[in-house]
Amino acid sequence: MAGTIDTRLAELGIELPEAAAPAANYIPYVITGNLIMVSGQIPMVGGKIEGVGKVGQDVSTEDAAGIARICALNLIAQARAACGGDLDKIARVVKLGGFVNCVDGYTEQPEVVNGASNLMVEVFGDAGRHSRFAVGANALPRGVAVEVEGIFELK
Amino acid sequence: MAGTIDTRLAELGIELPEAAAPAANYIPYVITGNLIMVSGQIPMVGGKIEGVGKVGQDVSTEDAAGIARICALNLIAQARAACGGDLDKIARVVKLGGFVNCVDGYTEQPEVVNGASNLMVEVFGDAGRHSRFAVGANALPRGVAVEVEGIFELK
Amino acid sequence: MAGTIDTRLAELGIELPEAAAPAANYIPYVITGNLIMVSGQIPMVGGKIEGVGKVGQDVSTEDAAGIARICALNLIAQARAACGGDLDKIARVVKLGGFVNCVDGYTEQPEVVNGASNLMVEVFGDAGRHSRFAVGANALPRGVAVEVEGIFELK
Repeated sequence: MAGTIDTRLAELGIELPEAAAPAANYIPYVITGNLIMVSGQIPMVGGKIEGVGKVGQDVSTEDAAGIARICALNLIAQARAACGGDLDKIARVVKLGGFVNCVDGYTEQPEVVNGASNLMVEVFGDAGRHSRFAVGANALPRGVAVEVEGIFELK
Repeated sequence: MAGTIDTRLAELGIELPEAAAPAANYIPYVITGNLIMVSGQIPMVGGKIEGVGKVGQDVSTEDAAGIARICALNLIAQARAACGGDLDKIARVVKLGGFVNCVDGYTEQPEVVNGASNLMVEVFGDAGRHSRFAVGANALPRGVAVEVEGIFELK
Repeated sequence: MAGTIDTRLAELGIELPEAAAPAANYIPYVITGNLIMVSGQIPMVGGKIEGVGKVGQDVSTEDAAGIARICALNLIAQARAACGGDLDKIARVVKLGGFVNCVDGYTEQPEVVNGASNLMVEVFGDAGRHSRFAVGANALPRGVAVEVEGIFELK
């Protein structure tokens, strides 16, 4: 039987990506106590990077928010893997840390990272509300426009 | 009766700002276990942003340290809200994360973030000592010079 | 009698640096619950900063990975101090946060931060595997090429 969160994902028409496997001596998540610390996620779709470019130059704020949403889908995919597939074991989203690859003087990092924040509330409801930071970066891995890390709490 | 920390704030002549309300699907703080994770705070004063500009160009290191102090006042205001108004429930400051909007080649991020670190020790004494990072960023939300996030521990 | 991790360090020919003392109102680490939160470490060697420069311009990716490794040695030195000298009290490495001082458009932050990640697994084995983020920054304290913060879990 599908869990509550799986049902919500289906209603929203959201299919989570496969959780990407570790690429090195770091791993996608660590569970410590009842916290899942998820590594910074970049906009991977089907094993390929989407959403490369510098916000405020190559990428609009609106498009960047969509890229942040893809990062957030990957965060949830990793959280699901950490839960052995059962997202109903998530008590809440604790924190997101959002890095936006942008030009100097760009000021709309919050609107970009809202793409990730909004997805968390769509999927988890009130339990999706979280603390966060949203900052600019002059460069990100593989040239992606957004990278988001996250912390989830287990029930 | 005023609490110990409230008394110290009064002695220092420090009036905490109102804790800013959430602006989106993220919220100003989350309590997980006995940790308060406070969202990245920007230099809000009376609902308005103060302290915009690029450090090393528009803003001096000394002025930026003052801006970091305002961010820290907002962190403490959020921690107070998380404690239901009683700062004596704070066991200690655990961590600050400081982002400084600066020009390439600027090297005094630690001196800037000291503006936040020093306030924590003024207010909380030894319990205000904390781990931290201090890094540069090429751009921050709304063009602010400094953003600081924080973690506090509850008694 | 030397501990397991001390023995491994000796076998690897790794001599940990002295844990640098606090320079201000922030401190090198805070223990909260069973987590050690270690402040952002820069490439200090014998009390002097090594590894200054901008990656992708003054510093190659390979050299930057070596600088990240020095940051990681300092993280382990702080973790050892937090353990009262006994690294066998470390249950695991939970998280690294890596900031790479780089030119706009630089994309190999993961390869740089691998210098830190790889050291953790050399020293702690599987317990050294960790979550992490790796991002670019346009400037870092004292002009260092890399800064890495970390979280360790105590047994």
